[in-house]
Amino acid sequence: MTALWQRQPVGIVGLGLIGGSLGLDLLARGAEVRAWVHRSATAERARQRRLATEVSTDVRVLADCGMVVLALPLDRLLAPDPTLVDALPAAAVVTDVGSVKASVVACWGPRLGGRFVASHPMAGTVHAGVEAGQLDLFRGRPWVATPDATTAAPALVAVRELAEALGAHWLTCEAAAHDRAVALISHLPVLVSAALLQTADRATAAAPPLASLVRALASSGFADTSRVGGGNPELGALMARCNQGALLAALERYREAITDLETLVRAGEWDVLQQELATCQQLRPPFL
Amino acid sequence: MTALWQRQPVGIVGLGLIGGSLGLDLLARGAEVRAWVHRSATAERARQRRLATEVSTDVRVLADCGMVVLALPLDRLLAPDPTLVDALPAAAVVTDVGSVKASVVACWGPRLGGRFVASHPMAGTVHAGVEAGQLDLFRGRPWVATPDATTAAPALVAVRELAEALGAHWLTCEAAAHDRAVALISHLPVLVSAALLQTADRATAAAPPLASLVRALASSGFADTSRVGGGNPELGALMARCNQGALLAALERYREAITDLETLVRAGEWDVLQQELATCQQLRPPFL
Repeated sequence: MTALWQRQPVGIVGLGLIGGSLGLDLLARGAEVRAWVHRSATAERARQRRLATEVSTDVRVLADCGMVVLALPLDRLLAPDPTLVDALPAAAVVTDVGSVKASVVACWGPRLGGRFVASHPMAGTVHAGVEAGQLDLFRGRPWVATPDATTAAPALVAVRELAEALGAHWLTCEAAAHDRAVALISHLPVLVSAALLQTADRATAAAPPLASLVRALASSGFADTSRVGGGNPELGALMARCNQGALLAALERYREAITDLETLVRAGEWDVLQQELATCQQLRPPFL
Repeated sequence: MTALWQRQPVGIVGLGLIGGSLGLDLLARGAEVRAWVHRSATAERARQRRLATEVSTDVRVLADCGMVVLALPLDRLLAPDPTLVDALPAAAVVTDVGSVKASVVACWGPRLGGRFVASHPMAGTVHAGVEAGQLDLFRGRPWVATPDATTAAPALVAVRELAEALGAHWLTCEAAAHDRAVALISHLPVLVSAALLQTADRATAAAPPLASLVRALASSGFADTSRVGGGNPELGALMARCNQGALLAALERYREAITDLETLVRAGEWDVLQQELATCQQLRPPFL
């Protein structure tokens, strides 16, 4: 039996990095893709790039879809356009691609019931917008769904079949567990890394020769540790806003950990420090 | 006029990553290289790898050298073997490659006077030991010297000529400035990154499913931010011990920065947080 995405048109709302990549992958697999975008300039460019079979600024483009993927930024996803909600086909399976899940479930579950499947394809590049979509973005990447007791089994299967057809690694967990996990591995690192950039700047702000020196001497270690802290500020603030509780819990624990290391350095407890770093060395490989 | 390293044999004490790479580069440029190592197994392997013209476990191998590079780990550099000190040719220019400088200057300056030039070639790989040395390790990398009022000008020139012959980018600064700079860009990142690994581990230790989830979902952002924290624990603890004061100052400032970001998240100050992250985005490129 063929999958839902093969039997009926797939709607995509938004053609940024995730939506555009979905469109390209689905077209490459023979699906019919109907995309709704906000601005006519985006629609025009999306047509040139052939990101979907049909691209429109008229929400009725979604009318015949058996499945709709909401590929919107979190803030727009969490404050849904009533026009969009009304235009979603009554029987369609609907999923999203947001990087937090509890707030998405709270927003969309009551609106759509069991046919809404909250999901998060964990793929990205540094690019955004209608130019960013690329083939095979999801191949080998995790695609996490966070169903609950109300989620309809056939809807979950339909989204899983879509994800696996694109080469993603499917897994499911509770929305709260997802949010705690991404707070630790994605949102906390942004702030940890940003604070490092702030420290290097503030510690040298009053001494221009030292400021030049740190910039001349910084090498791959600093570059890697500061990378995510120097990323997209809108995205960083949005993640924090939409995952405030889990991020705060992670930050509190992190502050304890860095303070404990500071205490070891102050006390000159070099053997204990070395043991702690040896533990860290062993902790890291399972994360890679 | 030819450089000192071209006129007289160059001695290297220790044939690990830095010493071995120096030997390979100098031999490739026609220098005569005399290396002293501690263990006969190391000497044998160094001869097989042709890391020096002559390799010996007898310190008298350094007798005719016009210049000696102390390529020892910091702990051994800071507790010098009296045999070595006595064997250094009386007129030789002596330099080191240690990654902290104030303590090295305090240790070696009084012993050798103006012919000691404290220096730090900032190059590395993840490898260590007699197998690690490689050609062109120093090309395009900073090589920082920290001369003071007692340093003899011809000695400084001799080390500079060596560094530049290997393609390194030469710069000088005060030892204290060097140590403050490397605390910020090298030693602080190790602890910042280690604390992230500890946090991800401790926050999930009581919940095995969540522990598996964070490991399954961690991607390039976590990998990059945690890289230096998962590095060599002996080296990490040694850097902290030898640069305690500067590292503590950096840690205090870092704790303030991360606490300030936590305060913004707790207060829901999303616009301010976004501005801070926008500043970080602008701060980073000059470090690359």
